[in-house]
Amino acid sequence: MALPSTAALSAYRTADGAVQLTVSSPTNIAVIKYWGKADARLNTPINSSVSVTINQRDLRTTTTVTASKSFERDRLWLNGVEEDAASNKRVQAVLAAVRSRAGDAVDASGAVLVAKAEWPQYRVHVVSANNFPTAAGLASSAAGYAALAYALATLHGFTGGAAELSTIARQGSGSAIRSLAGGFVAWDMGRRADGSDSVARQVAPADHWPELCVLILVVSDAKKTVSSTAGMGTSVKTSPLLAHRAAAVVPDRLRAMEAAYLARDFGAFATLAMQDSNQFHATCLDTHPPIFYLNDVSRAIIQMVHAFNDAAGEVRLGYTFDAGPNAVLLLRREHAADALAAVLKYFPPSAAAAADGYVSDAALAAAAAAAPPNPALAAAFPLPPQPGAVKKVYCTDVGPGAHVLPPEEVLADGAGMPLATADGGGGGALWGGPFLSMPAKAALVVIALAALRSALRK
Amino acid sequence: MALPSTAALSAYRTADGAVQLTVSSPTNIAVIKYWGKADARLNTPINSSVSVTINQRDLRTTTTVTASKSFERDRLWLNGVEEDAASNKRVQAVLAAVRSRAGDAVDASGAVLVAKAEWPQYRVHVVSANNFPTAAGLASSAAGYAALAYALATLHGFTGGAAELSTIARQGSGSAIRSLAGGFVAWDMGRRADGSDSVARQVAPADHWPELCVLILVVSDAKKTVSSTAGMGTSVKTSPLLAHRAAAVVPDRLRAMEAAYLARDFGAFATLAMQDSNQFHATCLDTHPPIFYLNDVSRAIIQMVHAFNDAAGEVRLGYTFDAGPNAVLLLRREHAADALAAVLKYFPPSAAAAADGYVSDAALAAAAAAAPPNPALAAAFPLPPQPGAVKKVYCTDVGPGAHVLPPEEVLADGAGMPLATADGGGGGALWGGPFLSMPAKAALVVIALAALRSALRK
Repeated sequence: MALPSTAALSAYRTADGAVQLTVSSPTNIAVIKYWGKADARLNTPINSSVSVTINQRDLRTTTTVTASKSFERDRLWLNGVEEDAASNKRVQAVLAAVRSRAGDAVDASGAVLVAKAEWPQYRVHVVSANNFPTAAGLASSAAGYAALAYALATLHGFTGGAAELSTIARQGSGSAIRSLAGGFVAWDMGRRADGSDSVARQVAPADHWPELCVLILVVSDAKKTVSSTAGMGTSVKTSPLLAHRAAAVVPDRLRAMEAAYLARDFGAFATLAMQDSNQFHATCLDTHPPIFYLNDVSRAIIQMVHAFNDAAGEVRLGYTFDAGPNAVLLLRREHAADALAAVLKYFPPSAAAAADGYVSDAALAAAAAAAPPNPALAAAFPLPPQPGAVKKVYCTDVGPGAHVLPPEEVLADGAGMPLATADGGGGGALWGGPFLSMPAKAALVVIALAALRSALRK
Repeated sequence: MALPSTAALSAYRTADGAVQLTVSSPTNIAVIKYWGKADARLNTPINSSVSVTINQRDLRTTTTVTASKSFERDRLWLNGVEEDAASNKRVQAVLAAVRSRAGDAVDASGAVLVAKAEWPQYRVHVVSANNFPTAAGLASSAAGYAALAYALATLHGFTGGAAELSTIARQGSGSAIRSLAGGFVAWDMGRRADGSDSVARQVAPADHWPELCVLILVVSDAKKTVSSTAGMGTSVKTSPLLAHRAAAVVPDRLRAMEAAYLARDFGAFATLAMQDSNQFHATCLDTHPPIFYLNDVSRAIIQMVHAFNDAAGEVRLGYTFDAGPNAVLLLRREHAADALAAVLKYFPPSAAAAADGYVSDAALAAAAAAAPPNPALAAAFPLPPQPGAVKKVYCTDVGPGAHVLPPEEVLADGAGMPLATADGGGGGALWGGPFLSMPAKAALVVIALAALRSALRK
């Protein structure tokens, strides 16, 4: 199955008589970027885009949905804090779309838990949490809305297909459409006025290119940033370069990018990704007033990547930046230790971060520490180290799309109320809302539970 | 005279039997930018551009040319240091072009100093100096090559007209073409294959818009930057957005910009300048590998300007940035104290700079200190002050183009050898060469002589 629709036979009845299921969904990083809506209400884009699905081992949203006739209203908890579900238009749009195509909810034995006709009497509780800091700008809304749409659709015995489900995720957050599937996923812009053909399409599954790795460098940035929705609205109105990019540059790049990924041509893939990232940020700068997402640290990382490639005499590293200063480096597994060594040389951790697991993969960090020095890079890029400029390095790769989790991963009790685990690893707003700080105690609970989960899986 | 050709009757014979004259030339700041050569040899641009001529009171190049049959070869001193004139292709191009159109050199009485036929026996000494730090990226090559072309042409009784002289300055440095005239000056790209119609055109003289002021914020930047010539070459080859900008965006903007300047419509003028500066830097970012000239301080200045305008409810400040991090702010005289107060609030001097004349205009600095607080700006832009992020603030305005100076401004002795004054206020490479440090002793001589000059003028 290229693109997931829903997983049948996965809901269950709780001791409280509610029906429930839990899903997880990945983030994704676009390598041909989406920036600009053709229709703000439908959330259709002015150009197609394509992205790598990030492995959920490292970054994911987990969402438990519980439905019951006894619930008074739809409710929503994000990272342990209740949001006002009724006033969240995007959440309401997803809920309404799923309900309009509800079917029978069935359990693992095929027994009907909720018949199609009964759904109007049901309300839902949604409990969602990230396993990564939400405020860090790591595409949490993509993972969040993909999980929401997939969980609600699966629970409701959604009668639409995979493509239609992707249009529902899109109404939550444009980039969520590309988080439903694993591997390499295109979002085809579509042509129809109702947006029904603006859908996700899996270009290659998660196991197509096992050598491909991803390093995510979380960059410190104290500045307020412009939200994607507000930013792209201003860009569409004011940037003369954006319309040209969408119409005249992106179509050829998309074809070349899909071909490069299918051929596992790293040089072409990484070069196109770098060019397209820079062009996206160029259109932000061409916006009036201009929008800045890259900062001096982002720029130093970009320059380091080019120096690394110059020193190697070939393209071994690529980069792409979304609407924030964080760098996503693209590379093949064989160069991971050397690339991480370069990152650690120029962007070592602060003293605090060094003690706290600066690099998510301890084995790769050890390999990087043992990597031979790179005098050609040092000569090409004589920048002094900037300790603390990068807060955290995630070592990850390509992974699967949204899927149903076993019942032990549940984030809510049988009555649909959040468990302590539902605080997530986050501490920010999952859906573009205000920043919410996470109590330190809850963080410890999350870490302990994550360790327990991990142990249970083995 | 809109565009200067040469000033007749201005050369004189020295006690050593040489002929000599001295000129000065301004820098300029483009508000519709030039980036990209149509022909690298001819130095013709891929689009037309237009600039404000900066008042020479604050930033200028002074150049003395001396010609003698007794000189063994052409020689060149920049800020007190001799350069290898023979190996400088741009200087050679200007010299050759002027010599090919030489006429009689005449003195103030009309007597012939050097007859046209005699020029092949003459060699020149060129002594040139800036009154501002050359390494600061303040368009020194524009002022330098305009002064060189104008001085040589005037000395040689140049027989071409003003337009042809501008094509000679262009061969030294593209933007030099716009430093010959004062006020608001266009560089029309031209259509002819030989570049003969790629000339300067004065849109409005220096006194057209006396209310217009300029604040130049010299931004600290330790990073190596990409030279304009190298950068625009890469941009032309790799940026899909640059060609679109040149062909589809710039022509309309130029018409609108000239109209705004002629109508003294500050809102339109400043808005177009900001948009075009950002679009130029966007095309740099769209280059592969990307070119960065703006840094985090530049970006903070941009955001401050937009916040200042938002707080005022109208466009009172504009900005434009050339190939470096320095900000050029555009404003009307009535808002100069308020604008400078905002600059000083967010970008106060370092302790050292405060003691050393951080703001070039003491009276305006006093007015800024007395300006009322701006709570609307403070609310719109809650950035903490960044002491030392800006190194120097020049308060200036629009001024005249290249012109001949009285003999007491001479930088060379009667035999064409540099006087101590020829060290300039600089300390960097005037013509895009390597950085040359100025001895502290020479700096003191320059400061003393500048004070003397100033006293003599009064």
